[in-house]
Amino acid sequence: MSRRLQGLPASPGIALGPAWWFRRAERGPLRARGEDPAVERARLEAARQQAAAELAALQEANRDHLPPEELAIFEAQTLMLQDPELLAQVEAALAEGASAEAAWSQAVEAFVAQLAALPDPYFQARAADVRDVGNRVLRHLMGAPEEPAMPAHPVIVVADDLLPSETVRLDPQRVLAFVTEGGGPTAHAAILARRLGVPAVVAVGSALRAVPDGATLLVDGEAGWVEIEPAPEVIRQARARQARWQAERAQAEAVAHEPALTRDGVRIEVAANVGSLEDAQEAFRRGADAIGLLRTEFLYLERTAAPTEEEEVAAYRALLEAMGGKPVVVRTLDVGGDKPLPYLPMPSEPNPFLGVRGVRLSRQHPDLLRQQLRALLRAGAGFPLRIMFPMVSTVEEIRWLRALLDEVRAALAREGVPLPEDLQVGMMVEVPAAALLAEHFRPWVDFFSIGTNDLTQYVLAADRTNPAVAGMADGLHPAVLRLIRQVTAAVEGTGKWVGVCGELAGDLQAVPVLIGLGVRELSVNPVRVPEVKAAVRRWSLQEAQALAEAALAQEDAPAVRRLVQEASA
Amino acid sequence: MSRRLQGLPASPGIALGPAWWFRRAERGPLRARGEDPAVERARLEAARQQAAAELAALQEANRDHLPPEELAIFEAQTLMLQDPELLAQVEAALAEGASAEAAWSQAVEAFVAQLAALPDPYFQARAADVRDVGNRVLRHLMGAPEEPAMPAHPVIVVADDLLPSETVRLDPQRVLAFVTEGGGPTAHAAILARRLGVPAVVAVGSALRAVPDGATLLVDGEAGWVEIEPAPEVIRQARARQARWQAERAQAEAVAHEPALTRDGVRIEVAANVGSLEDAQEAFRRGADAIGLLRTEFLYLERTAAPTEEEEVAAYRALLEAMGGKPVVVRTLDVGGDKPLPYLPMPSEPNPFLGVRGVRLSRQHPDLLRQQLRALLRAGAGFPLRIMFPMVSTVEEIRWLRALLDEVRAALAREGVPLPEDLQVGMMVEVPAAALLAEHFRPWVDFFSIGTNDLTQYVLAADRTNPAVAGMADGLHPAVLRLIRQVTAAVEGTGKWVGVCGELAGDLQAVPVLIGLGVRELSVNPVRVPEVKAAVRRWSLQEAQALAEAALAQEDAPAVRRLVQEASA
Repeated sequence: MSRRLQGLPASPGIALGPAWWFRRAERGPLRARGEDPAVERARLEAARQQAAAELAALQEANRDHLPPEELAIFEAQTLMLQDPELLAQVEAALAEGASAEAAWSQAVEAFVAQLAALPDPYFQARAADVRDVGNRVLRHLMGAPEEPAMPAHPVIVVADDLLPSETVRLDPQRVLAFVTEGGGPTAHAAILARRLGVPAVVAVGSALRAVPDGATLLVDGEAGWVEIEPAPEVIRQARARQARWQAERAQAEAVAHEPALTRDGVRIEVAANVGSLEDAQEAFRRGADAIGLLRTEFLYLERTAAPTEEEEVAAYRALLEAMGGKPVVVRTLDVGGDKPLPYLPMPSEPNPFLGVRGVRLSRQHPDLLRQQLRALLRAGAGFPLRIMFPMVSTVEEIRWLRALLDEVRAALAREGVPLPEDLQVGMMVEVPAAALLAEHFRPWVDFFSIGTNDLTQYVLAADRTNPAVAGMADGLHPAVLRLIRQVTAAVEGTGKWVGVCGELAGDLQAVPVLIGLGVRELSVNPVRVPEVKAAVRRWSLQEAQALAEAALAQEDAPAVRRLVQEASA
Repeated sequence: MSRRLQGLPASPGIALGPAWWFRRAERGPLRARGEDPAVERARLEAARQQAAAELAALQEANRDHLPPEELAIFEAQTLMLQDPELLAQVEAALAEGASAEAAWSQAVEAFVAQLAALPDPYFQARAADVRDVGNRVLRHLMGAPEEPAMPAHPVIVVADDLLPSETVRLDPQRVLAFVTEGGGPTAHAAILARRLGVPAVVAVGSALRAVPDGATLLVDGEAGWVEIEPAPEVIRQARARQARWQAERAQAEAVAHEPALTRDGVRIEVAANVGSLEDAQEAFRRGADAIGLLRTEFLYLERTAAPTEEEEVAAYRALLEAMGGKPVVVRTLDVGGDKPLPYLPMPSEPNPFLGVRGVRLSRQHPDLLRQQLRALLRAGAGFPLRIMFPMVSTVEEIRWLRALLDEVRAALAREGVPLPEDLQVGMMVEVPAAALLAEHFRPWVDFFSIGTNDLTQYVLAADRTNPAVAGMADGLHPAVLRLIRQVTAAVEGTGKWVGVCGELAGDLQAVPVLIGLGVRELSVNPVRVPEVKAAVRRWSLQEAQALAEAALAQEDAPAVRRLVQEASA
């Protein structure tokens, strides 16, 4: 009998094939104390060199069938093997008599914890990359066990979660899809799936463990489900959908650099969410109209002290230049949680998602924010810069932020520094209170950008990173849509605009609903830009509005998804 | 220069006087390993007997100036000294060579953790009681240090937080008010303040530490602030308010058993939130019209196995009988968080408030809920029983819950068991999605009871138990009020009703706003019943509606409080 398991959609497409469980060889326990520090140092040095050689070989071997962004992970990992901060920590532990494996493992885990504690899931995925290169070195230190081999026929890879080095063991020619128990739409398996153009469903939960090796699976990476032993009719329909989808994707890429207009000519800005200069370059290549979310945390990580103003100016200017005059929305520092940065100490919190994060932390450290604003205004002269504040919950906060920005601007003007002429200031809407009172926030901003990931988890009281409840946190839930509608209603007729920069913006089923609700900017993962533009072009504004109206009246997210499917048929 | 610090209102009234910091003597480090187990066992036995004798003496000495509910804490603590479950854990540790202090301390902390992990703050306050009696025994084991003595003149007690045994060291005649850095409206200092009839402000945060001993403080326990070195005019106004308030309180108690009608004759049910049979008896004495929230967790704690159906039936029947035919709303088991019950194992969660709690946990353990529903229906025959489900977020959940209840009812009917004729079924509204989609939940319930504590923390993304952000979580925030309005609008003209069972219902400034929004039941701490009834009687429905309408248009909670103050003047 067939059975359908619901997860989160992570890469679109349909796949049918046998399940293959990705299993790991077990590693023995870590030896804590070492021989002579000189001996341990030499052992580690050898392991690091072996790891670097392997990474170079992997990069070379995969050059043809992995896209450049995927190959870049290996480069980043090679750089990490030489990171002076990390090596200093390792050296300190070795000097105290730790074994090479213990010293290395602790330093790596400390860095992983720093990344994983950042609220943005983008950095949680980077934490997996760091742990992965850490494990590669550990395998050389402790003897590399045999890893189970992939079968000779194409399979649907089923796993708890997957690390970058694990996915390169897979032959992409034989991967039909990915299905994972944990993870999220920004986990590595999801990113790789999107790069390879195969479907992926993540966060299916522990029910996935009941799927035996060899069971026939049907994976729908758009709807986010996997069906075990599907009926023939279900398979037939899925195949028809798949063929249509492939043709559409090719067409979408051909016109990715054109603006996205609805069928009746309404322009929707399709922007990209990025976290580095490399991401921004990728976004530009993929046809993004703008950067809708620049995460600035990359400037603050892997450091023992905050960046200087000059470092910040240089980084922002490089990014603004890379976008060739297109608008760039820069989000100010958004950290929180459990001691993420050594120079921003924070007490551990029982519920960090409901604690001091975003501008709440900035208010405790106004000098850090003041410097960031100075650097942004200095870098932004001559560019269409947009500054955006994260985690704003009260009107009093946004007034304080605007006053701080005015103060910084006035000081720079007195210093004779050229300032951006085309500056816009906005805030993220992640906290339900901000959506419910949008009309009170409106006088203080030029735009709202809705962070649907956080908004959804607060509206449903369901932590997106907790597999036991992540399935509830679907941004197409009508309660979330009603809040989005309150934000768009608040700007109607004012010339101000509303964007969405959460995962929902890149969810093709959500695109017409969001447009119909009045959203005019969709900021998505760079690789999603062509398809999201294509999705915009499929609808007229009037159709989208009718669809949105109907969506608001539904009782849950699956009902909204059925509605979109019917309207798309 | 005067300076005002905002906290949370915890006990009404006005006080003016010198600050006195409550300081603790420091205890030395714990010895981990013990002498012979027999020696350690004898030491612990002696310390437990000393502690029990002290508790008996304290109870006796305070019999005249502490109310019975406060004295009951000492009885509960005496019982805990003989708890077989706790002593079994201690014995196991002693047998393995632990010292008496280490064995005792670990067993106590394990129980404290169990209580503190329950989502309801009521049990977090009970955790403080348990830790307190634990400390009393530890002091005897390790030598009791001298505690700093209270001054001879009346003072405003300022502290980080206060335990029951610490408050009994205070002479109530010399306590003008309590102000605490941490805690919440259900912490011990708050409860004691309400019992003694002195004002209290809690969760002021670390800014309180700047208050020196002897500084003149003005405490407003209704508005929830404390002012340092207030101006003479401010003091004069405060004294006038205080005199008025005392007269009103005496009057309120005289008519507490009368129904609460607005000036134009609309009946508001003023009910009580209780967590035990003793609480229910207290509620009855204080004039509560009903039990608006019976927390059933008391049946499930301090046990290694779930209660039997017969135990549950007996407990519910005793409670229904204690209320003499008044309605009783029983909330089904509401646990969650980090492994709270030994027979309900749960993984640790990074954000337990956004994790598996309430009915989410019940769905994972349907047999436990099925038994609770059977026991409730059996006990409820002949009584006006109301069953309420906590933490409902989706329509699909409430459908499942109703189906389970129907199945249980049908099975009991087949067995020939008499069933309640006047049963109502409702759900708590704590998750924003439930408020936003109230009209979709309505067909499945007879009433909604709004849990403003949780609803507020989700709407503002601010953990009420985290002092760094608790100040943001004021239930009079217009975003919360707008959601309450959506719930009351959904039942208009249907004969169904909306109550509030969070702290907000007992906040006298909130009473007219909630009535004006359409709330018809306010369920509060038993001791608050007379004053809440008096507050209801002060307003006409029309005035309350105008006030509520204006409150919905404000931009933040302080603005709403100012509005109520003006309307009350």
